Amino acid sequence: MRFTHHAALMKRIFIASRGNPEHMACLFREELPNHDVITEQPKKGEGPVPYIVVGRPLPGVIAAVPGLELVLSLNAGIEHLLASGEVPDHLPIVRLVDDGLAEGMSEWVLAQALSWHRNLTVYQGLQARGEWAPQPEKLARERRVTILGAGALGGAVTQHFVNFGFKTRSWSRSGRLIEGAQSFAGREQLLDAVDGADILVNLLPMTLETADVVDATVLRRLARGAFFINGARGGHVVDADLIAALDDGHLSYAALDVFRIEPLPAADPLWKHPKVLVSPHVAAPTHAHAAVLEMAENIRRFERGEKLPHLVDRSLGY
Amino acid sequence: MRFTHHAALMKRIFIASRGNPEHMACLFREELPNHDVITEQPKKGEGPVPYIVVGRPLPGVIAAVPGLELVLSLNAGIEHLLASGEVPDHLPIVRLVDDGLAEGMSEWVLAQALSWHRNLTVYQGLQARGEWAPQPEKLARERRVTILGAGALGGAVTQHFVNFGFKTRSWSRSGRLIEGAQSFAGREQLLDAVDGADILVNLLPMTLETADVVDATVLRRLARGAFFINGARGGHVVDADLIAALDDGHLSYAALDVFRIEPLPAADPLWKHPKVLVSPHVAAPTHAHAAVLEMAENIRRFERGEKLPHLVDRSLGY
Repeated sequence: MRFTHHAALMKRIFIASRGNPEHMACLFREELPNHDVITEQPKKGEGPVPYIVVGRPLPGVIAAVPGLELVLSLNAGIEHLLASGEVPDHLPIVRLVDDGLAEGMSEWVLAQALSWHRNLTVYQGLQARGEWAPQPEKLARERRVTILGAGALGGAVTQHFVNFGFKTRSWSRSGRLIEGAQSFAGREQLLDAVDGADILVNLLPMTLETADVVDATVLRRLARGAFFINGARGGHVVDADLIAALDDGHLSYAALDVFRIEPLPAADPLWKHPKVLVSPHVAAPTHAHAAVLEMAENIRRFERGEKLPHLVDRSLGY
Repeated sequence: MRFTHHAALMKRIFIASRGNPEHMACLFREELPNHDVITEQPKKGEGPVPYIVVGRPLPGVIAAVPGLELVLSLNAGIEHLLASGEVPDHLPIVRLVDDGLAEGMSEWVLAQALSWHRNLTVYQGLQARGEWAPQPEKLARERRVTILGAGALGGAVTQHFVNFGFKTRSWSRSGRLIEGAQSFAGREQLLDAVDGADILVNLLPMTLETADVVDATVLRRLARGAFFINGARGGHVVDADLIAALDDGHLSYAALDVFRIEPLPAADPLWKHPKVLVSPHVAAPTHAHAAVLEMAENIRRFERGEKLPHLVDRSLGY
């Protein structure tokens, strides 16, 4: 009976993630032994559950939790939580921005960018035909790259492009400065930021302001034969404009990790487009252990009354 | 007549490269207007030609040049010049190690390494079948990389692996220290350097000591499923050992840019091996403009009696 009684006094954490919540619960119990970690939807009348850990919860899950004080997102992007209407305005939401997320995104974006830059896919095709045919090669310093977004992910990715010597431009709401890159701020500087770019990388947060930002106007300002990489959200891109730019050769390739509907429906033309590289939302996978360390620390900070990093600002939408 | 007379007094530079020597001559004339730049084999009795610029010259070309004082190689690797017997021991050879070479190699090696690390080829296969199937993903910090060679190329490549957070080991003759990497020196530390590596990168110079260095003993010490990247010389690798390790699954893939015979003969089994990525010696292409700037500066240094960087040490073979 002692244990039950003790558990009743411990603050509860509800792991509402849809992929292997038991594994995550196990890691949480390791980190926060004085909390009660549950994986089943708490019933009304069982007492308050101040913390919920969520990815993309089913409708009704968050709203049904009694006594919620803090929402811990398993993702860096949280627009779906705001859109759900289940998180009252007074309830704080913390985005997950662990180091692993920025690292994973950097690896994936640079893998795509360098592969295109150095013609790896072209050489695969030549090998299949048994052809020894060196292609004209450029150095990174001869290519222009623009990264949309200069947050935890965009900033890390931008730094790697700078390290390779690419001519790098960064565009964001605030025009955050990143050493070695040229910074641009706000809608009025968007077209200057992308003008003549050979590679365009999208790492923006999904907000009302950034929806559909990658449209014909932006794509047509890129250099002819440019490469587009989307590691943020499908909703940032006007698909019809992208496909038109690929079809008439203005763009050479697009690497897309995110889509308006995921998994990408079988009938979507992007699957079979010869100039589109589809990957199943794996650019910056959440690494359970790194994620739990960060979230547990946020719970400790919250209980000590400290400021939480990556707290969602509702006026900005991220 | 004035011009001919003047040209006769100017020191001559013979551009003996086999690919577009006229373009390179044009760039040299721009840089060194007080030299006479020629692209045809000089005839005996025409007077001395102190400088020759060579890539992989046909037999007899170097030996026939009268009054040669300095050999400027268009490559970082010069083992073929030493083996030719056409360059007397007293004649200095300068390797071309311009910034572009290290940059190009870094871009190519990291393109290959990150593509493998983040399963880009696997996702291409899944896309062809219309399958949305996230693979287990690791972070760079969970992978071990060993780079053989810590010179201008190996050092630059190693730094990029460190920047991405890979667990990085560097092996070289001297055990040169590179910040963020663990250093190993000499034959006796080779197996420790490669033990359990997920990615092995070869960027060694081609010498008697390094011939056949990547053999079964080395390959079998890598982690199961490892990836091998060769950007140096085909002669470093025992092809039969490599193919055996790929065939029995000890290695998952190999990216080869260099071969014992180039172009790779049509009948070579590497062309069609499903786990081999063949590229036609393009990892670090010589960029004419960067190369000429560096070589012209070396000619000026030579004429001022200054020390030449990357002068070949015959006792080391590079």
